[in-house]
Amino acid sequence: MVVRGAGPRGGWRGGAPRPLGIDFRLYDPAPDASGGRVAPLVVGAFDDRRALERFAADVDVVTFDWENVPADSLRALRGRAAVRPPARALAVSQDRLAEKRIFRRLGIPTAPFAAVNSLAGLRRAVARVGLPGVLKTRRLGYDGKGQAWLHRRADIGAAWGALGGRSLIYEARVPFQRELSLLSVRGADGAIVHYPLAENRHEQGILRLTSAPYRDRALQAAAESHLEALLARLRYVGVLGVEFFEAEGRLVANETAARVHNSGHWTIEGSVTSQFENHVRALSGLPLGGTAPRGHAAMVNFIGRLPAAADVLAVPGAHLHDYEKSPRPGRKVGHATLVATSARARDREARRLLELGRREAGELTQ
Amino acid sequence: MVVRGAGPRGGWRGGAPRPLGIDFRLYDPAPDASGGRVAPLVVGAFDDRRALERFAADVDVVTFDWENVPADSLRALRGRAAVRPPARALAVSQDRLAEKRIFRRLGIPTAPFAAVNSLAGLRRAVARVGLPGVLKTRRLGYDGKGQAWLHRRADIGAAWGALGGRSLIYEARVPFQRELSLLSVRGADGAIVHYPLAENRHEQGILRLTSAPYRDRALQAAAESHLEALLARLRYVGVLGVEFFEAEGRLVANETAARVHNSGHWTIEGSVTSQFENHVRALSGLPLGGTAPRGHAAMVNFIGRLPAAADVLAVPGAHLHDYEKSPRPGRKVGHATLVATSARARDREARRLLELGRREAGELTQ
Repeated sequence: MVVRGAGPRGGWRGGAPRPLGIDFRLYDPAPDASGGRVAPLVVGAFDDRRALERFAADVDVVTFDWENVPADSLRALRGRAAVRPPARALAVSQDRLAEKRIFRRLGIPTAPFAAVNSLAGLRRAVARVGLPGVLKTRRLGYDGKGQAWLHRRADIGAAWGALGGRSLIYEARVPFQRELSLLSVRGADGAIVHYPLAENRHEQGILRLTSAPYRDRALQAAAESHLEALLARLRYVGVLGVEFFEAEGRLVANETAARVHNSGHWTIEGSVTSQFENHVRALSGLPLGGTAPRGHAAMVNFIGRLPAAADVLAVPGAHLHDYEKSPRPGRKVGHATLVATSARARDREARRLLELGRREAGELTQ
Repeated sequence: MVVRGAGPRGGWRGGAPRPLGIDFRLYDPAPDASGGRVAPLVVGAFDDRRALERFAADVDVVTFDWENVPADSLRALRGRAAVRPPARALAVSQDRLAEKRIFRRLGIPTAPFAAVNSLAGLRRAVARVGLPGVLKTRRLGYDGKGQAWLHRRADIGAAWGALGGRSLIYEARVPFQRELSLLSVRGADGAIVHYPLAENRHEQGILRLTSAPYRDRALQAAAESHLEALLARLRYVGVLGVEFFEAEGRLVANETAARVHNSGHWTIEGSVTSQFENHVRALSGLPLGGTAPRGHAAMVNFIGRLPAAADVLAVPGAHLHDYEKSPRPGRKVGHATLVATSARARDREARRLLELGRREAGELTQ
């Protein structure tokens, strides 16, 4: 059922479909993909149409758990199995320009932006969009990679030198108060449920901390209406995540994730139904589960190296999710979630978890 | 790490140790044990000392997930690996007489009882303990099997005819208002946490419904003190369950479970930390997690055949746990849990789940 499911997003590796009685198998180019421990693994290249078609012939639904699966490979499977979320949603999320354009078409506010394909084009974009701004590759950027900031016109040459030759997008900087994300789920029957907004804190381009629920009735309503427009337009089935900036009291859409999302890991312990279970329910045509928060939740990513399990679990309300990856600077190797009865207690314990994570990351890079 | 972990208790099959970064392997006589899907499976007989010793040599901790693993096989592994919970606790839970005797030694109230090894012994036991009462095999009884009720002296012959020749125990009937169970967890460092009392409803000897928390401060305190005595006496590590009758406002201990327990499945979604996670934390020497309930939870066992997933998941707050077993009258094939914001809503939705289960069981036996 899953094309490439060996990643750290836990739902497949954790066997999320199994309690619902749903059998699944995985397709991955790596023969040692860790998902192979929990489900039959078919090994094949993402551009091996024949192998993919054989895989799809055996399943009812094909999905993906990695944003860089080629959308064309999924398109080729339509007719053999239901592809959920749709290949188009994946294609949009893979291309920052397509993403911004669909936001604009649906009336969802974005930062001013322009496509850039040449040095002259970058000059025009900077003139039109303004400074400061950020030049990004349209594809394959993540965790702050593939980006160059421009603060003055003199930065144009260096930015082009770093990224030029690829398809790019130039975006104005958004002076934001905070980063928020909304995860919504659309069932195969079109029913939609929304999780509460979550607040995200990034450091060096990597998500460090998510806190949820972030309570703001007006922003929640605005975010839900944006997601509903996207879900309908894309004929989406499954969990869709959108990252927003909150700038001067309104939401500015930044990017989409056509899958379960790191900023939704708090739902594992912090919500009535986890994003993983709701994703599987949606893909399988089952009724969606409740999305209400249970208390005040936080999720802390561990980057580089995992703290000792005993230290993490000594924090009240904490749960550990170890991705079983070898340590490497900048790599997400696990996360902890916690649920507390007040936002204040949640923030206090989250600081302890952040501190544990920082100590490990610091020792790793010394 | 686990001797026989292929059962429906979900923790091992669901990969409970994995998020904590703990590797595990399974030992089972059945080459097709379903646990083999999630962890390496070593196939061997429970009395194959050599195979068990080879298995134990590779692990730090050995545990069990089935009450009929021979306690002697575990005893033989001491010195090679830590056996948690201890083999003695398993031996006690396997023998209704040993269980009642340890209750009595620790001052934990039980029904009047007597050992029975002959027809004459049964006559003496009935004279001493009184009528009505129940004759039970000391070993291998579960879900109401291996039991015969005696209402008058004339029933003695039939009861002996049904069960005689094995080691037996005769117990007076306890006129109880309700059945309650307490699950407690003792860490490797001796720290103890208790879940709230749960109320259980059996039908034809099989657990149908658990509701938690059952709030009664005096009974909770009494149950906790009983469990603390047992945990200390057995030098227990892991989750221990005790089933009680509530009779005239006090607790009467009925039996123990030296493992995670069916009446604790509500903790998967209904408590801060599930019994599975806390069991793994205890076995692994990690700090224990919180046991507070999150709302009002219920667990409904599905017996015989599973209702359609779509029907179960249409019940607000419901989660499905499918054991992927073929239908058979009287067999536990899965369960649903639900969490609601009030006891009243919980009871209403639990009735819907019970009704779904009854309809399936009814069709199966027609």
